Amino acid sequence: MAALPEPRLLKALKGEVLERPPIWFMRQAGRCLPEYHELRAKAGGFLNLVFDPKLASEITLQPMRRFAYDAAIIFSDIPVVPQALGQELWYQEGEGPRLGPLPDLDAMADRVNSVGETLASVGETVRLARAGLEPERALIGFAGAPWTLATYMLQGRGGDAARTVARSRAFTERGLVERLVDILADATASYLIMQARAGAQALQIFESWAEFLPEDVFERLVIQPHARIVAALKAAGVTAPVIGFPRGAGALVERYTLESGVQAVGLDVQAPAALGQRLQRNVAIQGALDPLLLRAGGEVLDRRVDQLLEQWSGGPYIFNLGHGIIPDTPIVHIERAVERVIAWRAR
Amino acid sequence: MAALPEPRLLKALKGEVLERPPIWFMRQAGRCLPEYHELRAKAGGFLNLVFDPKLASEITLQPMRRFAYDAAIIFSDIPVVPQALGQELWYQEGEGPRLGPLPDLDAMADRVNSVGETLASVGETVRLARAGLEPERALIGFAGAPWTLATYMLQGRGGDAARTVARSRAFTERGLVERLVDILADATASYLIMQARAGAQALQIFESWAEFLPEDVFERLVIQPHARIVAALKAAGVTAPVIGFPRGAGALVERYTLESGVQAVGLDVQAPAALGQRLQRNVAIQGALDPLLLRAGGEVLDRRVDQLLEQWSGGPYIFNLGHGIIPDTPIVHIERAVERVIAWRAR
Repeated sequence: MAALPEPRLLKALKGEVLERPPIWFMRQAGRCLPEYHELRAKAGGFLNLVFDPKLASEITLQPMRRFAYDAAIIFSDIPVVPQALGQELWYQEGEGPRLGPLPDLDAMADRVNSVGETLASVGETVRLARAGLEPERALIGFAGAPWTLATYMLQGRGGDAARTVARSRAFTERGLVERLVDILADATASYLIMQARAGAQALQIFESWAEFLPEDVFERLVIQPHARIVAALKAAGVTAPVIGFPRGAGALVERYTLESGVQAVGLDVQAPAALGQRLQRNVAIQGALDPLLLRAGGEVLDRRVDQLLEQWSGGPYIFNLGHGIIPDTPIVHIERAVERVIAWRAR
Repeated sequence: MAALPEPRLLKALKGEVLERPPIWFMRQAGRCLPEYHELRAKAGGFLNLVFDPKLASEITLQPMRRFAYDAAIIFSDIPVVPQALGQELWYQEGEGPRLGPLPDLDAMADRVNSVGETLASVGETVRLARAGLEPERALIGFAGAPWTLATYMLQGRGGDAARTVARSRAFTERGLVERLVDILADATASYLIMQARAGAQALQIFESWAEFLPEDVFERLVIQPHARIVAALKAAGVTAPVIGFPRGAGALVERYTLESGVQAVGLDVQAPAALGQRLQRNVAIQGALDPLLLRAGGEVLDRRVDQLLEQWSGGPYIFNLGHGIIPDTPIVHIERAVERVIAWRAR
């Protein structure tokens, strides 16, 4: 019996340097696809999609039919973990997630180990999506990172002002914030272990709001919790590689890479070529096309795609954006970028 | 005749390593001081303060009476340069500056060399403030950086959404944005030359919105215009050292430092200790206390002040914030931080 081909994404995550890097785009499922919006209109609320494995796996696979991506990422959203810990969650049309008052910390701590079980429907989404995907394409599971979740949970919403208040509370209510982040690290580990056991072949941790943290705070609220999650996955026997994405970490991404234990690091739009090359000595890197440029399209997009390929494809590299796809991105621009990456080395 | 003592700030800017670093805080004039708000209430609009040299120099000196800062920075605001180029400017109470439609680029280009003259009242502020300041305390002039000014000018206002649109236009209207930035570099040079001739002993360029720019865009819209300003100052015989502050530049601050030609670099709250130490081999560094922590106060503030002093006072270092003082910062916290820095090495 011939062995199944190993997905290109997993080769890169192991540190292999490939003739052309794998490609997928953050937020590729949902958002900019008309077939998604059709489904969403029928389903009613956003959470009806997330917690229905048939719908969520269908949305996961929709972009895989349109584009030659090398990996699918399950369709979900990061505040499902706070909800599983007992915080009320709802979606305000056009405004993103809203959360109720922060639950008692002890009550949340009691729930951390059952988060995977509470979110079992996401595991079913993983199983269905994996079953519907070609063997040479990988399936990625994901979770929000503890600090990013905490910024939502502390203020009950996202946005710049809420994040500033959360950063301020990291100084004025340090004990509370540090304990919350530790609880979230354990809950996230439980959630990711469940996804890996259901068939997710790689796991991404989205630290979407790593920006503007002083080094000592970053160490305590980002590096340490990520290391805690990685250690818990290892202790549970999970072998799926972890992609950590500390968006906005700037120069702190170097310490993050060395100390968190992740197998790959997502880079944001700002990452310098030289920095990525230094990181590639230790891990695979992923990123960092500007979603604003993907939306803009044209020759300036082509040139930047080529530049990223040239600067980073000498080491383990996964082509991706530096942040999620913007909803009104023209589909032809996505096609153009994906085809250009796929054709790399063929030109 | 005994020589006047050289201001501590200027020694640090020359690269001297001092027993204890000089200290000043961005936005130290105005904002959090009751005596400022008294003056402002009497004067009516904000621009009435900025363009009245007696009032503006008084506001410049107010914090110098309260705190043992080693430097004063003139009281002004960055959109005076767009106004001098012909763009309408006003202040919406509680919302910051607003600007009218972008003027014709050719018309602005015709005005660049007269910007210093147009803003001559700021030169008078410099003269009055310098005359009212002790010789051992330095006077800093400043301007907004071209890209940061452009983000305001393109959308007519500040804020996150406006900056995102400006970054997007850097891709979709690249020619326009690049020409605008070049015009602003020349206008800024004219403005800073005037301030230096009036008596400003150091000049800071505030690139407040250097964040989220891809490396190639950062090079074209931040590094090159700053280098252009530094070269114009040199050509005009200005010897006052330049502090460049590319806030949010992350790891790109290293290229910025090597390629812009500035004598000192302002670091934001996120700057890692090791990064600052690398930069100190070539330039003086300034920063990077979190203004949210200054507002929070307490022992956590003391500990971070000590940490910054320990990690950076082995090289040329100017103690400062990583961003401007927040308006509701308690004055006792500012006193506490300043006194702690002043007492450094004495403990």
